[in-house]
Amino acid sequence: MRTLIKNGYVVSMVSDIRKTDILIEDDKIVRIGTVSEENETFDKVIDASNMVVMPGLVNAHTHVAMSIFRGYNDELELMNWLQEMWKIEDRMKKEDIYYASMISGIEMIKSGTTTFNDLYFFEEETAKMAEQLGLRAILSRAVIGEGDDCLIRVRESEELYHSWHNKCDGRIKVCVGIHAPYTCPPDTIKKSLELADRLGTPVHIHYLETKDEVEKIFNVYHKSVTDYLKELGLFNYHVILAHGVHVNDRDMEILKNISGGIVHNPISNMKLGSGFAPVKKMRERGINVALGTDGQGGTNTMDMFEEIKLATYLQKGLLGSATAMSAKDALQMATIEGAKVLGLDSEVGSLEVGKKADIIIIDINKPHLKPHHDIYSLLAYSVNGADVDTTIIDGNVVMEHRNVMNVDENEILEKVELVKNKLF
Amino acid sequence: MRTLIKNGYVVSMVSDIRKTDILIEDDKIVRIGTVSEENETFDKVIDASNMVVMPGLVNAHTHVAMSIFRGYNDELELMNWLQEMWKIEDRMKKEDIYYASMISGIEMIKSGTTTFNDLYFFEEETAKMAEQLGLRAILSRAVIGEGDDCLIRVRESEELYHSWHNKCDGRIKVCVGIHAPYTCPPDTIKKSLELADRLGTPVHIHYLETKDEVEKIFNVYHKSVTDYLKELGLFNYHVILAHGVHVNDRDMEILKNISGGIVHNPISNMKLGSGFAPVKKMRERGINVALGTDGQGGTNTMDMFEEIKLATYLQKGLLGSATAMSAKDALQMATIEGAKVLGLDSEVGSLEVGKKADIIIIDINKPHLKPHHDIYSLLAYSVNGADVDTTIIDGNVVMEHRNVMNVDENEILEKVELVKNKLF
Repeated sequence: MRTLIKNGYVVSMVSDIRKTDILIEDDKIVRIGTVSEENETFDKVIDASNMVVMPGLVNAHTHVAMSIFRGYNDELELMNWLQEMWKIEDRMKKEDIYYASMISGIEMIKSGTTTFNDLYFFEEETAKMAEQLGLRAILSRAVIGEGDDCLIRVRESEELYHSWHNKCDGRIKVCVGIHAPYTCPPDTIKKSLELADRLGTPVHIHYLETKDEVEKIFNVYHKSVTDYLKELGLFNYHVILAHGVHVNDRDMEILKNISGGIVHNPISNMKLGSGFAPVKKMRERGINVALGTDGQGGTNTMDMFEEIKLATYLQKGLLGSATAMSAKDALQMATIEGAKVLGLDSEVGSLEVGKKADIIIIDINKPHLKPHHDIYSLLAYSVNGADVDTTIIDGNVVMEHRNVMNVDENEILEKVELVKNKLF
Repeated sequence: MRTLIKNGYVVSMVSDIRKTDILIEDDKIVRIGTVSEENETFDKVIDASNMVVMPGLVNAHTHVAMSIFRGYNDELELMNWLQEMWKIEDRMKKEDIYYASMISGIEMIKSGTTTFNDLYFFEEETAKMAEQLGLRAILSRAVIGEGDDCLIRVRESEELYHSWHNKCDGRIKVCVGIHAPYTCPPDTIKKSLELADRLGTPVHIHYLETKDEVEKIFNVYHKSVTDYLKELGLFNYHVILAHGVHVNDRDMEILKNISGGIVHNPISNMKLGSGFAPVKKMRERGINVALGTDGQGGTNTMDMFEEIKLATYLQKGLLGSATAMSAKDALQMATIEGAKVLGLDSEVGSLEVGKKADIIIIDINKPHLKPHHDIYSLLAYSVNGADVDTTIIDGNVVMEHRNVMNVDENEILEKVELVKNKLF
């Protein structure tokens, strides 16, 4: 399968923007530069005139099946909201997770996300969604609790790994997920890390999201969350640390040496009143920072362009400086830096020959995107998810002119409403 | 002309959401409630099943012709950016202002704004745009500088009033615009207020946007910006105070008694590093707070749904509480409270019998808007401008199924690029 993308503004994220062509063979980018149509044959030619061609976005922290909670009890304080939500989660069946994941999957493809990193339960249903829609995913079953509860979840994590890791031509990967330091006693964290050791996977964990967490761990263990996790051996693994809101200078001394990095979820952190992550400072110390949406409920949208905007607005606002974080910086966090945090940067996150063809094409010939001065600015500050015209993952066109392939969108819209009516 | 909007979720902003019909006769809403199609005739019937029907949004602080600067030199500190921009503004001709306004006008209609309040120069070109597209507008020529410069601008303001005030069936109004306390000496402010007195108009002014402004006024006049303006008599008028970032408790004691209010521009204030307005506190004291986008350059989009999101995220984030500002609060600021700040609340800002038919219809049968728990939440946190299907102003359908009437959109897209190439 050979696909030619003609004449777009190619925003590779690793070299200067230029108007040129991209040739895809099967799942890979094989050429970036002028491709003559005269002496070659292609299975598909996409005209990207007046469009931006850029890497698919990496949503590095999600709970996609939480779409079912979008707009549910938004105006509650976090702990009250969690309690309401847990009641519903207890009633959720596998099929519910499938449809709830499906709505998020469609939403991600329609707003330019090609890779997501998920932490929840019944993850095999989320895997089925990613398989069907053609998304790239890292999936983890959240280990939480203690005793038998913990053992069951560790076993489910291992089963998920054996059923799904490296399936769909390697598009789906499985890692170990630990819910959070404040919901898992040390033994649970240790058992999870033993599993990561056995399987050789990264670890995905909520980390320093709220002040409560800092206080809880200090009160019980008399140490900082970072020291506590370090002593348990977490940082010997590739770690995907979701949130990192309450990271301080001492924590950064440890974090700057880890493999992996922080996932910044600006909307979720604001909307839940969790605080503001010191993103600029962390990046200056050499810590990789990805962007994520968190689950709906935290944020209410999977549109990564919203997170890109917020990531830069927040640093500019907090630091009182219009130059605190550039458009390009924020776009990097949503692409190549996100891929680094997930350990996927040899495959995705930039447009380079030899990398996977995870590509989005954005129509910039629209009133809200005119005139054209600076394409990075347009992408970071003016584009929204609805401007994504075409989404390609692993060389496959999974959305063309806003039509998502491989699924009957209307059927899913109806099903998810039925699931909601059943659960709530 | 009788238009029936059937079967939508009617979000009036003054009573509970219900699924019902709205009947428009000419420019007004004449009925909200079930309308039988059997014994009545209509010129147009709009099926709003699965859609939200709500008041058009009020963008209470704009410089619409600044669309030409969208994405230009975004990564500069404010003062450097202003200097770069002033060089270009000096070269701008009337025709340039027309096309630059036109792009913003189309953008506003496509993202659900029906009323805007503009402060700039060559405003008669912006008036022509509003006339042509069917937008509702308050326009003001920014008075700035001193001596002859001031006198010329006061005269231009008066001319604008006589040419355009109450034109287009009252859709276009003119008020007096004063650039800012720090760019206008007392005599300029006095002359502007004399004009407002003579014409009987509100006054639109930048107010407490940056810390610099606070310091500048204190250093020269040894008083606060609010005291300074009060002594000049500003608060004897209906005032539209753009920004109000650095409002303190003492200022609020004065502001709570004014006619008019503050226009909060959350994105602009963050993006330029100006600071965070104490919106919750001001509203608790009974001060009306509208929302605005500011000019592109400040923000890079005219999408008021972005400002709605940011207004609530910011208060939640800054106050560390998920309940600091509700979805409905933010929607009120963008509708009825915005109309109050502009002095237009007897005409627009809510859906009520007798009010002008300024209505937007939003398709909520989309993956990123499912499932449906709470419509206020959906509108404030998940909808974006591209979800607006139909826009009605003064009873006229100015956009239907995303096609803007009364203009060749592609021609404007081309023209604005030519204007940019000429100016930059």
